[in-house]
Amino acid sequence: MDVYSFLEAVREKQPLVHHLTNWVTIYDCAQVVKSFGASPVMAHAPEEAADMAGMASALVLNIGTLTVDFIESMKIAGRAANSRNIPVVLDVCGAGATPFRDRKSLELLDEIRISVIKGNGSEIARIAGRDVRTRGVDASDVEADLRVIAATLAKERNCAVVITGKEDIVADSERMYIVRNGNEMMSRVVGTGCMAASVIGTFVGASPNTPSAAAAAGLSCFEIAAELALEKAGGPATFKQLLFDCIYNLSENDVAAMQKVGQ
Amino acid sequence: MDVYSFLEAVREKQPLVHHLTNWVTIYDCAQVVKSFGASPVMAHAPEEAADMAGMASALVLNIGTLTVDFIESMKIAGRAANSRNIPVVLDVCGAGATPFRDRKSLELLDEIRISVIKGNGSEIARIAGRDVRTRGVDASDVEADLRVIAATLAKERNCAVVITGKEDIVADSERMYIVRNGNEMMSRVVGTGCMAASVIGTFVGASPNTPSAAAAAGLSCFEIAAELALEKAGGPATFKQLLFDCIYNLSENDVAAMQKVGQ
Amino acid sequence: MDVYSFLEAVREKQPLVHHLTNWVTIYDCAQVVKSFGASPVMAHAPEEAADMAGMASALVLNIGTLTVDFIESMKIAGRAANSRNIPVVLDVCGAGATPFRDRKSLELLDEIRISVIKGNGSEIARIAGRDVRTRGVDASDVEADLRVIAATLAKERNCAVVITGKEDIVADSERMYIVRNGNEMMSRVVGTGCMAASVIGTFVGASPNTPSAAAAAGLSCFEIAAELALEKAGGPATFKQLLFDCIYNLSENDVAAMQKVGQ
Repeated sequence: MDVYSFLEAVREKQPLVHHLTNWVTIYDCAQVVKSFGASPVMAHAPEEAADMAGMASALVLNIGTLTVDFIESMKIAGRAANSRNIPVVLDVCGAGATPFRDRKSLELLDEIRISVIKGNGSEIARIAGRDVRTRGVDASDVEADLRVIAATLAKERNCAVVITGKEDIVADSERMYIVRNGNEMMSRVVGTGCMAASVIGTFVGASPNTPSAAAAAGLSCFEIAAELALEKAGGPATFKQLLFDCIYNLSENDVAAMQKVGQ
Repeated sequence: MDVYSFLEAVREKQPLVHHLTNWVTIYDCAQVVKSFGASPVMAHAPEEAADMAGMASALVLNIGTLTVDFIESMKIAGRAANSRNIPVVLDVCGAGATPFRDRKSLELLDEIRISVIKGNGSEIARIAGRDVRTRGVDASDVEADLRVIAATLAKERNCAVVITGKEDIVADSERMYIVRNGNEMMSRVVGTGCMAASVIGTFVGASPNTPSAAAAAGLSCFEIAAELALEKAGGPATFKQLLFDCIYNLSENDVAAMQKVGQ
Repeated sequence: MDVYSFLEAVREKQPLVHHLTNWVTIYDCAQVVKSFGASPVMAHAPEEAADMAGMASALVLNIGTLTVDFIESMKIAGRAANSRNIPVVLDVCGAGATPFRDRKSLELLDEIRISVIKGNGSEIARIAGRDVRTRGVDASDVEADLRVIAATLAKERNCAVVITGKEDIVADSERMYIVRNGNEMMSRVVGTGCMAASVIGTFVGASPNTPSAAAAAGLSCFEIAAELALEKAGGPATFKQLLFDCIYNLSENDVAAMQKVGQ
């Protein structure tokens, strides 16, 4: 896969990525989109969610700090995106932690046509109907084979499925990409998971005809930047700042030399 | 203009700046106020918005992530500020993007006496009744002459108008300041626009009798710090951290040597 | 006191710390917990607040950006925590600033069994029924003897009381710890107060049988990291980033050599 060509598409098209996301990491979701050269917008009022989604290139929904009203706004935005064939990325952040979160995740999946479902192993396993426990929003061990879960869910829901982790799995009904970039420090930083969903939205917004390839390329770029950032970081916080800087400065040479996307 | 004298007033008076602001950038709005030596407070419950505004030196309203309820709290705070002659800064963040946003901006302008309206070119043009399109919250090309728009709106609304951009325009009904500090990296960072509104609130809070001069001086200081920050920054995220540090350390010599405020 | 043993307990047990906190500093509250090696979770919907609190090792409530609905969610989470003997930390952020804030703080104290009440001098004095004025959320001079206030309130409310400041006072009904680590730069950064409450939740979550000792140890570790961070910081923003890094890297030697916890 020519990962860099997807980054180039982002930088050229500068997609507008509308978010209804997590209040904890909302700033970082916006900044990661901007660092890639695209435009973030966050707007959740029911009176304008449809208008904003309708002018965007992608819509990112993240249930991390969900409420009933917030999910209703997500549905309004999602329906507007669907009616214009704008891709919708759903981060099922924290699925498995509470019944409320599971129920609302499934409501979104049933009522909105989702292009990419994204989560860590335990979150996606729960959405796929497997019985695993999520502990907060960190990944827990999941016994079942994640690749099988991803491929099966992708077929059932007719969408792409992304499971982030030591290796990232990106599956659609026909193919699977494995992204092996990144490092352990990413899991020491609050928000890298949410940022990954925003990155997927950014790349899918710029390359909407190949969502799974775009998602894999976006994750690879994000994680290559993380590898570069770690070289100079003294800990999780300087790492995060350098991550944004490295995303902003990411070169064709770095991407070509460092990309690890297999099938 | 003696820009430093306005910074000195901020550091001596340490104004309390009450915000009802954008959830995306709320932290940075608070930190920029504190870095200048003033005190931020954020409180939006309708039960306390008036009490908090009434004890502040300035009130900053930012509609970036507006809802109907949030705008109602802004009105409560705004009326309390008005009744005590506390200056109110309104950031019409994202005006032009949706009809809801335009309608609520105009409601605030009609119901609250605003001291300073602040936005980028397309946002202010929309508030002034010009037909331009805002794409998300980034500035778009605006054909009309921004200086004329600013001066006309300032007279119509009897307030100061600030249009941020490559040059910042600060107009009131009698005069105009042009601030030429700053750099392009500011536009690569989510939140510099919102921070600019908080900076204006801070400086107007310390020098309430000369709001347009205070706004221009505040923008100049903020952007001088941005120039100093860029010297050591590796990208947008380290730039933002250094920006806060440089604000905190801003010296009389730096301000005197670097200020670019014309008329 | 062997401060490091409490840090070791955090790193080994990795407590899940559930927050209903301030929207301004919510990211930093999460990141400080994670930097210490524990797991943060933020969830405020009334439909899941009890479920999330019930699986946590500690619950942190911070009223910084309270609303009526948010306080109701805090009560739901608090009752769930109480029913399972999960320690609850209450940061009375901004108490004294408005009557609404005072009333809601006292409601929480009356309806929920709180393990640790935390605030700065003027906030705690107000909660204790003393007549002092809070200016925004910064500490103001409080005439009354803070140690007496802390000890008296601890007895009245049968809990631990933490007053942060140049020296931190941690009192329960039987003893008092004084923490003398930290520095003035902490007060130049928005969020260090809120982070302190999250640190207390983290340490009390790992050592629930000795809440006052755990709180004192947590504050000492947090502030030792602040001392280390200041050595390389150029201002408040780089200081905050280095603070997280130093927390993440905090060694037994540093803690043993630098701890200043007296009685």
